[in-house]
Amino acid sequence: MYLKKAGLTLLFISVVISIGLAQTTELQENTRAIEFPDIPGYRTLKCDLHMHTVLSDGHVWPSIRIQEAMKDGLDAISITDHLEYQPHSDDIPHPDRNRSYQLAKQAAEGQDLIVINGAEITRAMPPGHANAIFLEDANKLNQDDFMEVFREAKRQGAFVFWNHPHWTSQQKDGVASLKELHLQLISEGLLNGIEIVNDDTYSDEALQIALDHNLTILGNSDIHGLIDWQYGIAQGGHRPVTLVFAIEKSEAALRKAMEERRTAVWFNNTLVGKPELLVPLIEHALVVTRKGKSQVQTVLIENHSDADYILKNLSEYTLHNHASVFTLKAHETTIIQVKTLEELSSFSLQFKVLNAFTAPGMHPEISITVE
Amino acid sequence: MYLKKAGLTLLFISVVISIGLAQTTELQENTRAIEFPDIPGYRTLKCDLHMHTVLSDGHVWPSIRIQEAMKDGLDAISITDHLEYQPHSDDIPHPDRNRSYQLAKQAAEGQDLIVINGAEITRAMPPGHANAIFLEDANKLNQDDFMEVFREAKRQGAFVFWNHPHWTSQQKDGVASLKELHLQLISEGLLNGIEIVNDDTYSDEALQIALDHNLTILGNSDIHGLIDWQYGIAQGGHRPVTLVFAIEKSEAALRKAMEERRTAVWFNNTLVGKPELLVPLIEHALVVTRKGKSQVQTVLIENHSDADYILKNLSEYTLHNHASVFTLKAHETTIIQVKTLEELSSFSLQFKVLNAFTAPGMHPEISITVE
Amino acid sequence: MYLKKAGLTLLFISVVISIGLAQTTELQENTRAIEFPDIPGYRTLKCDLHMHTVLSDGHVWPSIRIQEAMKDGLDAISITDHLEYQPHSDDIPHPDRNRSYQLAKQAAEGQDLIVINGAEITRAMPPGHANAIFLEDANKLNQDDFMEVFREAKRQGAFVFWNHPHWTSQQKDGVASLKELHLQLISEGLLNGIEIVNDDTYSDEALQIALDHNLTILGNSDIHGLIDWQYGIAQGGHRPVTLVFAIEKSEAALRKAMEERRTAVWFNNTLVGKPELLVPLIEHALVVTRKGKSQVQTVLIENHSDADYILKNLSEYTLHNHASVFTLKAHETTIIQVKTLEELSSFSLQFKVLNAFTAPGMHPEISITVE
Amino acid sequence: MYLKKAGLTLLFISVVISIGLAQTTELQENTRAIEFPDIPGYRTLKCDLHMHTVLSDGHVWPSIRIQEAMKDGLDAISITDHLEYQPHSDDIPHPDRNRSYQLAKQAAEGQDLIVINGAEITRAMPPGHANAIFLEDANKLNQDDFMEVFREAKRQGAFVFWNHPHWTSQQKDGVASLKELHLQLISEGLLNGIEIVNDDTYSDEALQIALDHNLTILGNSDIHGLIDWQYGIAQGGHRPVTLVFAIEKSEAALRKAMEERRTAVWFNNTLVGKPELLVPLIEHALVVTRKGKSQVQTVLIENHSDADYILKNLSEYTLHNHASVFTLKAHETTIIQVKTLEELSSFSLQFKVLNAFTAPGMHPEISITVE
Repeated sequence: MYLKKAGLTLLFISVVISIGLAQTTELQENTRAIEFPDIPGYRTLKCDLHMHTVLSDGHVWPSIRIQEAMKDGLDAISITDHLEYQPHSDDIPHPDRNRSYQLAKQAAEGQDLIVINGAEITRAMPPGHANAIFLEDANKLNQDDFMEVFREAKRQGAFVFWNHPHWTSQQKDGVASLKELHLQLISEGLLNGIEIVNDDTYSDEALQIALDHNLTILGNSDIHGLIDWQYGIAQGGHRPVTLVFAIEKSEAALRKAMEERRTAVWFNNTLVGKPELLVPLIEHALVVTRKGKSQVQTVLIENHSDADYILKNLSEYTLHNHASVFTLKAHETTIIQVKTLEELSSFSLQFKVLNAFTAPGMHPEISITVE
Repeated sequence: MYLKKAGLTLLFISVVISIGLAQTTELQENTRAIEFPDIPGYRTLKCDLHMHTVLSDGHVWPSIRIQEAMKDGLDAISITDHLEYQPHSDDIPHPDRNRSYQLAKQAAEGQDLIVINGAEITRAMPPGHANAIFLEDANKLNQDDFMEVFREAKRQGAFVFWNHPHWTSQQKDGVASLKELHLQLISEGLLNGIEIVNDDTYSDEALQIALDHNLTILGNSDIHGLIDWQYGIAQGGHRPVTLVFAIEKSEAALRKAMEERRTAVWFNNTLVGKPELLVPLIEHALVVTRKGKSQVQTVLIENHSDADYILKNLSEYTLHNHASVFTLKAHETTIIQVKTLEELSSFSLQFKVLNAFTAPGMHPEISITVE
Repeated sequence: MYLKKAGLTLLFISVVISIGLAQTTELQENTRAIEFPDIPGYRTLKCDLHMHTVLSDGHVWPSIRIQEAMKDGLDAISITDHLEYQPHSDDIPHPDRNRSYQLAKQAAEGQDLIVINGAEITRAMPPGHANAIFLEDANKLNQDDFMEVFREAKRQGAFVFWNHPHWTSQQKDGVASLKELHLQLISEGLLNGIEIVNDDTYSDEALQIALDHNLTILGNSDIHGLIDWQYGIAQGGHRPVTLVFAIEKSEAALRKAMEERRTAVWFNNTLVGKPELLVPLIEHALVVTRKGKSQVQTVLIENHSDADYILKNLSEYTLHNHASVFTLKAHETTIIQVKTLEELSSFSLQFKVLNAFTAPGMHPEISITVE
Repeated sequence: MYLKKAGLTLLFISVVISIGLAQTTELQENTRAIEFPDIPGYRTLKCDLHMHTVLSDGHVWPSIRIQEAMKDGLDAISITDHLEYQPHSDDIPHPDRNRSYQLAKQAAEGQDLIVINGAEITRAMPPGHANAIFLEDANKLNQDDFMEVFREAKRQGAFVFWNHPHWTSQQKDGVASLKELHLQLISEGLLNGIEIVNDDTYSDEALQIALDHNLTILGNSDIHGLIDWQYGIAQGGHRPVTLVFAIEKSEAALRKAMEERRTAVWFNNTLVGKPELLVPLIEHALVVTRKGKSQVQTVLIENHSDADYILKNLSEYTLHNHASVFTLKAHETTIIQVKTLEELSSFSLQFKVLNAFTAPGMHPEISITVE
């Protein structure tokens, strides 16, 4: 049966209905959706800006990338098929490097998902691989001289970032290091960002490069196969994402936010970003309620996000039910009891967030006010 | 990174290691593998003989079909892309109808999986859709006159089966019914089998047609998207499969078994097939142990298969801990206590298996000997 | 700390809060609560009328029995400590056989739970063991002549039932059989009911005795240790219960319903009872919705009860996605597709419920109307 | 049925069998068992040395405490019923304060569990409550003058520890503080230990007191109801335990270890103890395997314990797949990739363990050698 509409409709009904039942115990598809709160002034857009399809060396049609993105609750994706690497060319002799974008765009019709035209510039190191996104015409980047490629990307108003600078196939020791050429690209405004996370890898050194050179940080899946297999429900996992703090959910706002360095990276229960972004991101995920009034104050903290926050208590008060390091589990309510010595009408607590990083080895500090 | 070998190796290590740990509580990938025992004289081959890829109207490259099959523990698959329906022809102008077979074959290299060359003859009803498998050259079937297509298939030694005769797009009331043309195909030996299960649909009427005309029964996924999404772990599910009882795991033995009608269908906790196949299939899934010796005899029944068997007690003895209908859950041990009135050195129990069918509304009866 | 009130309050808060969170994935305490619908004219009261505490040979104080009952969502319990068997008498030399009732009553204060004064008459077979419930003074039953004990129970207006007539310690072959003495008790109105289920045992013969002699059927836990260990969450289990169909939730209505034989038994995914009770019980658990209008009609069946109903299709229509035996899982929505041949404005479906019994080997038939 | 032996035997069989099946997915009873490794020179005994039964203000018979201990994999328990508080005295007018010990001892017969005679001295603050364990005769402690009680305990060779010094019923602000009287008890050798954890509470201040005055630290459940309800499987939880590092599993060795301060406390994914005990405890839980040889070295770390270890990387090498803080989940294998710059035949890694404490706010540092 190639006309599967009937089947799809039924599946949809099934999911909707079972969510509606109070006591359903089955896992629902939407348990995959990544959840983080907006912060004051900005929408928090969950983005994966590096992925592949059969139109270069991936294993799926662009439509699957759209469905995966919807299941993961993403706001924006860019399919960045290789410009220069076309292993399926015997079967797909496609000359048009905008084709995966077009097909993805079609597949996303009617969905609340931003699809960005992108392509991967695939060169030996240096410069290595780089993604150009927000392209007008990817075909114009398909030329030999890579400096010309970067310049064409700029001409089109693209945002260009260095992919997996720590990739061991191009950097044997895995230590991201800036070559002369990269400095030149940066100084010419041809390189705007850098992946500090790619798939299941992370680089402290890439993060340091971003800080030193004011580059936008990104974390992307670079998926070739299936998201579910690479980051399966069974593993309790999710793909890495770039969190982009944009004034609204639009391609233009997203582009501006990336240019203005308003991104953070979420992977493997770790958040990375500037303190001015991470602190409100974490604080707004937490809903704090006081229970009664007492010298040993009971406080309920609901964590409305996908991160388990590992906290170190910095406040002057010790806790009655936790040592000074404890965890606020994702989507759970944690009860803490604070020894305030006397009954206080309000007080605040400070915590270092040990699984969040503002720089290699540096953690943001959040504050929780109890009123 | 387009060279993902390192990543794949690591994943493999991860799975192997965690299985080795005694107390691992996570779901492992291999929980998807479908399990049924061999029966005396035959290997039980788990087969999915109807599926699609980007080479017709599917959403994945053939390589994904191979990985899905391995995860599901299949023994054989056939990718049966449409001969006549090519919605991706703008991007994949492939003239070669053997191509998905070739690509799947490549992807399966080194795996213990039989890949069969197949194609879907895609016509209005009658005859509707039919799969020809064990083809030599699918291209030769790509011609206008469908009678010629069926004859060419026969010339190549193909096994041909009628797909989803109950498909509502071609049979509005969903009631499979044999047209004159089908009778002709059958009488000429051009139609050898019939799907009684396609995706999540089942047809009692198709089963009756198979019985009336001695056709091989099949149950296949007809997957276009992703197996995991259609039959997800979250749903506790598995794809429908055709169980083929072959003298060995080889393409030739598989073909012969299909010709000789030695198949059963497994879908949605239901087994369908001839009693001479279903009875040993179920009996060999059960390992029976007596515990001590007593007037109320304790018997342990381990169910080493993926089916929950719903049993109706037909024996002269009543049970001490179950009513006359009860379930042997898949991969669990059920304890039954049999009131044999006196201590017996051996006795046997008879059960009707209510979720297994030998014909519409008819159930096989199994016997369990306790010694 | 012997004053645990603070701790208990906190626990309560914790549970309430986490239910409120949309994405909480943890099992909640209330997943144990047994759920069945009321039926026209009657409340369905979930009762366990046979259990023990430290006041005879049990292992817990009566307060634990109250908490267990609340967790299981019970409406009524009776603690039926042995009159004659007092293994803890060295430590608890209690002469008062009403004491476990008094302590349970205290512990249940403020809870919506009916606590019934009961006691177990503990004799050799015949008559074997029997529970007298709705007692005024259990002490008056503590005398030698058992006929006098049964008469005293009657004098107090008690309801008396035969416990585990199939118990292998008193009936070696496990086959419940009525002795002369039981007939006498029944004819004198001294024996009103019979356990067909006790703990994890069931007796077809006891059910037949109940039918032959018009006795009220019961299924009880007879728990001595902990309910959670005997019927654990880990096993997905629940204790056996007697479902009593009473005009309201009150001790008087409960007593009357038992006298008038309005009970059913729920154990091990099996329901037993008269058709006039089982049929509405099952039908009212199912919420049926039609989806669109079609020749192959999609019907959604929500099962709002704890039973997985194993159905056999008796209607004239075959199904498009199930064979003639299939299961409506507890607390899930099952989609069935009915081949009605033409679009019907309304139609009805008949099913035999294979895991429900009105007599040994006999099943009730339910009807579902689709409008 | 008061003779439940048959039932218990069956249950046992059931558990054993299902563990034997390769694909069993149910939770098994023994998933509750707390697991920590022995350390060089010592057995790691898991102990709960504070609990109650119906013989003071608890809700269960001592037999239940034994079964709970076996399920939790404990090596030793002491039932410490209150000497002075007897709310069940109407029903259990027991004069013998050794009785819960005797009953527990009987119930533990044949089990590999050390049962220690203990009692809780239950006084206003100061001194508050204290447990005396390893008693010869608890009755001799049942006298008015509490100084005499402590002295009698010492005379009997008991080990005495201060219970929940931070209990808000006796210390309103929850801040444990040593009174003059406690100093006197310590100086006379009448107070040997201190609970830093009681039920779900923890006290940094109590830990500091232990360090300042060289007291043995303990963490106990103080359970009155049911362990499963207080620390349920549903919550993924376990009771707090005192880990005692003894030269062998015997009452004498246990007593000696407690006297010599060789204890640690495990509660709520937190370990507390001296570095010389915690460091080997954590290091021996980890089995480290190198995979191949590379500049970016893959290392597999199996965590054979119940603790999720939250690690901070202190070594000179950064990781290829983790930031500098990451978690080794309990009973799982974590793969880390170490950027050693060159291929090394061996190297070592240092980590601070953030959920382990050697003093308030202080963490132990472990070392892992990769060879």
